[in-house]
This record gives sequence, C-alpha cells and structure tokens, in this order.
Amino acid sequence: MTGQEAGKVRVDLGLIHFPVMNKNQETIGSAVTNLDLHDIARAAKTFGIDSLYVVTPYKDQQKLYQEVLDHWLTGHGAQYNSKRGEALSLVHICDDLEQLINTVTEKWQQRPTVLSTCAQKRHTSVWTFDRVREKIKNEECFLILLGTAWGLAPEVLESGDGILPPINGAGNYNHLSVRSAAAIVLDRLLGERG
Amino acid sequence: MTGQEAGKVRVDLGLIHFPVMNKNQETIGSAVTNLDLHDIARAAKTFGIDSLYVVTPYKDQQKLYQEVLDHWLTGHGAQYNSKRGEALSLVHICDDLEQLINTVTEKWQQRPTVLSTCAQKRHTSVWTFDRVREKIKNEECFLILLGTAWGLAPEVLESGDGILPPINGAGNYNHLSVRSAAAIVLDRLLGERG
Repeated sequence: MTGQEAGKVRVDLGLIHFPVMNKNQETIGSAVTNLDLHDIARAAKTFGIDSLYVVTPYKDQQKLYQEVLDHWLTGHGAQYNSKRGEALSLVHICDDLEQLINTVTEKWQQRPTVLSTCAQKRHTSVWTFDRVREKIKNEECFLILLGTAWGLAPEVLESGDGILPPINGAGNYNHLSVRSAAAIVLDRLLGERG
Repeated sequence: MTGQEAGKVRVDLGLIHFPVMNKNQETIGSAVTNLDLHDIARAAKTFGIDSLYVVTPYKDQQKLYQEVLDHWLTGHGAQYNSKRGEALSLVHICDDLEQLINTVTEKWQQRPTVLSTCAQKRHTSVWTFDRVREKIKNEECFLILLGTAWGLAPEVLESGDGILPPINGAGNYNHLSVRSAAAIVLDRLLGERG
C-alpha cells in the first residue's frame, strides 16, 4: 500500500471554493472561512482522513489560508494549542479540482473514486453511505468533495463518479453548514457504530 | 402530548457557557461564538429539535446573543436569508442550568432525562446512542447538554442523569469542535439510517 500511515484510511477531503453556487444559483468563488479550516481539519483528524485539500484559484486567498496554517503549525498558535496544529497538518492548498485529482492520484498511485456532497437529492446517486463505508474498509481510495457557500456548482457534481445522499432530518430544512455536513459525512463513513 | 409541534421530537439542546473548562482544567465562563449559534441551530432545525437553549449568566453576553438573534429574526438578516431565521427561531437564552431545567420541565410538563456530552470516556455512562434513539422514538423527553470551551465542568457532568459516549474516530485525537460534535450527536440520535 502506498502513502498510507498507520490508523489512516485512503480517503481525502476537498473543500471547494470555486466553482460553487451563491444563494441565487449563480457560480461564484467563495472566500476563506477560518472556522471551516479548523472544524473540518479537526473532524478529519478524528476520523483518520489522510488529507484535507483546500481548493481555491485566488492567490490572495491561498496566502490567507497559508498564514492561518503557519500560525498554528509553527507560530504562536503552535505553542498555545498544539492540538490545532495536529489537525491542521492535514491541510494542503490546491489551485483547482484538476490539480487536486492529479495530486491524490499520484499519492495513491491510482485515481480515487471522486464523490460529491449535495444538500439536494440527485436521482443518479447510487452511492449510499453504507456502500462507501464498506469500500473504505476494503482499502479503496476515495476523494470526497465539499462545497462552500451554497454548495458545489453543477459542473463539479457532474464531473465526479457519484454523489453522496443528502443528510436529511425530520422535515424539509436542508441548510446545514459545510462544517456540520462534513462532520456527519465523516461519522457516517468512518465513525464507530452502536 | 404537550407543547409539541408536528415533525418535532421532545428533545432540547443546552449550549452551556458556564460552568465549563479551559485548557488548564480550570472552571471558566466562555464568550459568545457567533458560529456556534448558527451551526447548532441549523443542525437542530434539520433534525427536528424543539429548542436550543443558550446558557450564560453574563448579561452582556446575553445581550450580544440577543442582538445576533434580532438581526436574523427581524432585522436585515431576515430579508437577506430567511433560512437562518427559521433555524435561529429555535434559540432561547437562559441564565443557568437550573433555569433551563425548570423551563423545559414546565414546557413538557415533566422533567426530561438530562444527558451531558463529553469527549472523554466516563465509565458510569450506560446511555448508548442507540438506546437514547429508541427512547426518543417512544416520545420520551431529553435535554442534551453541550459544553463550549474545553467542555462541561465536572459538576454539570455529575448533575444530570447520564453522559453520552464520546465520539471516537480512528485514533486518540478527541478534539472535535462543539459544532461538529453537536451535528454528529444529532445525526446519531435522529438521522436517517442506511
């Protein structure tokens, strides 16, 4: 097996800032959200994810993310709370989806199955959480894409190998934050049962 | 059944700001975190929770929370994004745990089972997620307490009826944000299975 440390699974996350949707269903690029990075990295670390790739084409935004990472990995934050650095050491920055897929393909020496997340039901999806959970146990490689703002643009949803089911609750309200959705997706795929 | 709207369960959340722990295991009161309110209210709304009670004895912090709520419920935020108001309409502010328990006991006309959450394993806990899930289905009342900062103080953990198991992942890293932990707890207790 290539590139895998003990206790980790062959699963990566991509947090996509472009192309995503705004609330008027227009394609936009979204800005850095500091707590996305912290919360999703901490959840990724908890569940044994290999890496969290932050995807944005904007160089000023990449610089901002790098400054946050530097603070917690080597700066004052590293002394104040080393647990944040442990989580944020999983984070890498990519320009776009193509670069992300090339990076993980090289890492695993095979192209991972690319699954998107979406708050709406897509009838084409056949990827249940249980099915993916089983495949992860069998050491298959996955790249899970998470959308910022109002979610992944249609061209991202359509470019991958499938879409995970939306996280439904009691009614029609489907407006979880990407931080909450990421935590639930990871727990469904990798959390303890019982 | 008293006080219950269609689609909702007889479950409330308490987000505790005092007494909680800091990273040196000292008892402190924590400050307002805007995204705690948004993320946990959105998850609560998704999973049919009746109310999210924010517990802080500090009047200036209560005022800050009320300003955030007013912005999204009746101010500019209500026009900008009505979905936030739908979630934040579940939020109420309490002075302390005693007032919270009195409030929910009056609402349900019975004292709920009070369960705390904790990132460490407590050997006294017999409340598995599956057991609580079953009891919620049977319309039993629960109040789930979430700690801000480094978690609930021992006197809170010991004052309730039990403690939910910690959310464990692949290794020893147990530093989920309260936002992520709340989302996972709600999904384990109330989310769709399969």
